Amino acid sequence: MQAALELYIERGFEQTTVAEIAKRAGLTERTFFRYFADKREVLFWGAMSLQELLVSTVATAPESEAPFATIRSAIEAAGSVFQDRREGALQRQSVITLNPELQERELIKLASLAAAMAGELRRRGVAEPNASLSAEAGIAVLKIAFESWVNDKGEMDLSQLIRETFDKLRAATAG
Amino acid sequence: MQAALELYIERGFEQTTVAEIAKRAGLTERTFFRYFADKREVLFWGAMSLQELLVSTVATAPESEAPFATIRSAIEAAGSVFQDRREGALQRQSVITLNPELQERELIKLASLAAAMAGELRRRGVAEPNASLSAEAGIAVLKIAFESWVNDKGEMDLSQLIRETFDKLRAATAG
Repeated sequence: MQAALELYIERGFEQTTVAEIAKRAGLTERTFFRYFADKREVLFWGAMSLQELLVSTVATAPESEAPFATIRSAIEAAGSVFQDRREGALQRQSVITLNPELQERELIKLASLAAAMAGELRRRGVAEPNASLSAEAGIAVLKIAFESWVNDKGEMDLSQLIRETFDKLRAATAG
Repeated sequence: MQAALELYIERGFEQTTVAEIAKRAGLTERTFFRYFADKREVLFWGAMSLQELLVSTVATAPESEAPFATIRSAIEAAGSVFQDRREGALQRQSVITLNPELQERELIKLASLAAAMAGELRRRGVAEPNASLSAEAGIAVLKIAFESWVNDKGEMDLSQLIRETFDKLRAATAG
């Protein structure tokens, strides 16, 4: 929803109304509300397809693969998606960074992504706590690599950053 | 605030009023509000002393210690505190589990704890992303070990569970 993102950047998230978004997008407000519960959800509707990507990557991994390797593949796949939509991802992040309530919503979505991946690992027979541990560690890597990428304005390759961050986690935990 | 916890368990969090909490605790409502912004905060005021414990453990760790080992010590120290206050911790968790809004608040507090530890590591000269990565991984271990402990009704030793979960994280990331 590029019209909404533009307005959030131009005027601030709090100051933007749904009426303004609908006008900029050439929609009625009624049509807007057919797709989004509120103006906040415009920023988070991508979480559903991200979750589908993560879960389907876990679901289709080779049976013999170690759970953490599976999570690593899923997070790297997510990184490619952000890299391909670099401009939109950076704009969205610039809006979220300015608003504590949106930051909280982002944390909760990240926790949901971890829970969804852990659920899929359990469905494949991975026991707890390994399922949750792998999924939570993977999401921590995504969050931290994503922050580095945003701070660098997307100049570095996110997939590469994710791989390096996984390697750093391995080195740190090896002690 | 045992009076509030008892009421949340007896009547449910949503159904309990501050007036009822104050009456049970033998306080005026005015006194209640001198300590807590709202009835939700009763459940989270311990987060401040937990954060102080985590940050001070990081702050006083030997300079030569690896950052992840420092985080591990801090999380183990937190585990001992929960173990010593087993009954209250389990009661509190039983309230939070029933309420999605409280679960979200808990996630946000956990993220704040990770951010506080990462900040203290950076103050000690640890570079990013290692500071955040160590802190976030440590909080993931605490969250998952704590869940196992609660599911087991606190019968297992939480400090032991935390040590085992750190070992499992190491084994998982080693691949």
